[in-house]
Amino acid sequence: MAQLNITSVPGFMAGALHCGIKASGKLDLAMLVSDRPAVAEAVFTTNKIVGAPVVIGQKHVHHGKILGCVINSGCANVCTGKRGLADAVHMCRLMAEHLARRGIDGETEQYMPFSTGIIGHYLPMEKVAAGIAALAGHIGCTHEHGEQFAQGILTTDTCTKQAATVVKIGGTSVTIAGACKGSGMIAPNMATMLAYIATDADVPRSLLRRAVRDTANRTFNCVTVDQHTSTSDTFVCLANARATHPKMTPNSRFYKTFCEALFDVADSMARQIAADGEGATKLVTIEVTGAQSALDAKTAALAIANSPLVKTAIHGGDPNWGRFVSAAGYSNVRMNVDRLCCWVGGIRVFGSGRPANTDLACVEAAMNEKHVTIRVDLGVGRESARIYTCDLSREYITINADYHT
Amino acid sequence: MAQLNITSVPGFMAGALHCGIKASGKLDLAMLVSDRPAVAEAVFTTNKIVGAPVVIGQKHVHHGKILGCVINSGCANVCTGKRGLADAVHMCRLMAEHLARRGIDGETEQYMPFSTGIIGHYLPMEKVAAGIAALAGHIGCTHEHGEQFAQGILTTDTCTKQAATVVKIGGTSVTIAGACKGSGMIAPNMATMLAYIATDADVPRSLLRRAVRDTANRTFNCVTVDQHTSTSDTFVCLANARATHPKMTPNSRFYKTFCEALFDVADSMARQIAADGEGATKLVTIEVTGAQSALDAKTAALAIANSPLVKTAIHGGDPNWGRFVSAAGYSNVRMNVDRLCCWVGGIRVFGSGRPANTDLACVEAAMNEKHVTIRVDLGVGRESARIYTCDLSREYITINADYHT
Repeated sequence: MAQLNITSVPGFMAGALHCGIKASGKLDLAMLVSDRPAVAEAVFTTNKIVGAPVVIGQKHVHHGKILGCVINSGCANVCTGKRGLADAVHMCRLMAEHLARRGIDGETEQYMPFSTGIIGHYLPMEKVAAGIAALAGHIGCTHEHGEQFAQGILTTDTCTKQAATVVKIGGTSVTIAGACKGSGMIAPNMATMLAYIATDADVPRSLLRRAVRDTANRTFNCVTVDQHTSTSDTFVCLANARATHPKMTPNSRFYKTFCEALFDVADSMARQIAADGEGATKLVTIEVTGAQSALDAKTAALAIANSPLVKTAIHGGDPNWGRFVSAAGYSNVRMNVDRLCCWVGGIRVFGSGRPANTDLACVEAAMNEKHVTIRVDLGVGRESARIYTCDLSREYITINADYHT
Repeated sequence: MAQLNITSVPGFMAGALHCGIKASGKLDLAMLVSDRPAVAEAVFTTNKIVGAPVVIGQKHVHHGKILGCVINSGCANVCTGKRGLADAVHMCRLMAEHLARRGIDGETEQYMPFSTGIIGHYLPMEKVAAGIAALAGHIGCTHEHGEQFAQGILTTDTCTKQAATVVKIGGTSVTIAGACKGSGMIAPNMATMLAYIATDADVPRSLLRRAVRDTANRTFNCVTVDQHTSTSDTFVCLANARATHPKMTPNSRFYKTFCEALFDVADSMARQIAADGEGATKLVTIEVTGAQSALDAKTAALAIANSPLVKTAIHGGDPNWGRFVSAAGYSNVRMNVDRLCCWVGGIRVFGSGRPANTDLACVEAAMNEKHVTIRVDLGVGRESARIYTCDLSREYITINADYHT
């Protein structure tokens, strides 16, 4: 999956430039455009306070066919009232106007707007408008264009996050590739992020919807960096049907192949978000097994993943497993304390109500890996859940105590 | 309330010593003893995994009359199975034995055991037993004894936390005084802490129960440092009836006076816990008003108080109010976004769906006070809640990444 990126998908163009929102001079405006209307599905934040682009994006994707996405980073266009809504629509109108000059004819409603960055500030629309005009003339389908896109959507991220795969559907090669951002304000429903996946597969909308929702639930909605569900975040999948493969039906193996490939790409992207959580030095997987319900398993896993005491212990490589089991304890899910077990990196540290007779040095070694796995079995059932998170470091404080200024 | 402490309450003795649990050599064993059985009520952690002392303490306080409390710090006696339970009972038996030699005759069941510190380790019972034997001979009722008690119960706290008041009930002076600990693993139900309040008031048990529960809900259960509800924590109130005042009845002004004074003492202690949260540099009060229910108000206030993004913004004195309102937004309570307002230190920063026209320099100044107040009005009702918390600093990471070793 190394050399492919989002512009590897036939029919998609992308690009990014610096339009002047970020004081750092970094790329802050990006575009992803399909040469024909693509079947589109998206999952949005569950925060009750949402950005203007979320309101507009929900409306536009409802039509089912999308030509492209325009994304600015550095300003989220949230808590900005009517003016913010007008700005988000204006971004789409500018897309339609300028891309028509490149032969891509479409309506304002066929574009989705996205903004990520600080809340409570109006977009500098002069800069954004000039940027869209310029970028519309420069998008392309080279590898470099794809890399620029992946960079242009970032905020506090330290690296781009991309994944891609090619699968055979009925003998035809189908490409699925994506890029996402997200480092802080990351919690399930939606993980606070923007994620884009493009594919040339030919997927009926009802099947794309099912695949996107199921994938989001098992990947992006299993990531938490700081439990702060954002106001902006969206995962969108565009399928332009450029590939000519046998028709997908709900129970066909073609659809199954597509769903599995979509999951693989999204899962890789979700892990990359957790690993690049603000200030993170380690990727952490929290597994809860033996739960009475899937909801109990996820609730307990999230309680463990979101506890600052757990995250700092992992940061310090400290085998203080009492924090892991006590976090499950306060999550208020059903458990049998006498049967509850806890493992760190596969080593059992607690079981049968008392500390396991293990060598703490081995546990410490497991906690000093770049990828730490904590598992808690609740001892009351067969359901399980898995959450991706990261450790909590001084760097997180540094990044977030001064983000505004 | 400056010069009084827990030994100012007639009939109570206290003290502390170093028995050898803490490697630092600090006080790690403390006692509070009444010269006669006191009416007792306690509120315990809601964590499903509880320490052995919680199990035993719940059983003993159920009898209704308590002679004293014995507390060790440095080891929580949690996740220690049957051996842990036996150790907790043994602490009480040793109390009964050694205090009988000082003329305080009582049963094992009239003492409550408490342990705070790391989870998953057995108590060093030889040290604890020798400590109880020695301390039973040295407790007293001087101011110094009270200060030692307040110090002996601490773990990562940077200072003692005490409060006291004297009120007139029907012309008779009644003293209410307390000491508590708690700095990390602090979240409501119970705030992760140990809190002791002694009084010479003569309170029927049913009324003491009501007063203690109501007070806990409005004070200790409104504190969160790191949302990690502990396995050990307990608030206990002992009333020894040494004062001879008119009988309290449910609707009497005598009872009302007592309840108000108990609240004042507990509220002061709760604020001290938040202000001394691990690594804290600021006390933070989160107020949510205009909620449709009290539960909604508390849920939203806790979401704001527990968000690491909110806590780091406050640490940095950064008026990034988008984090405050977006945290309310993801708490999933009922709100009217168009009527939602947010104030920082009394200055309105958001309202009517858009940023308020305020001078950010004034907001910054309010955020750089030692006590920062954030208020969010949800715009849908009349209910409110108030939560005490603190900022999140690099020091929190330092303390918690290396606590075990």
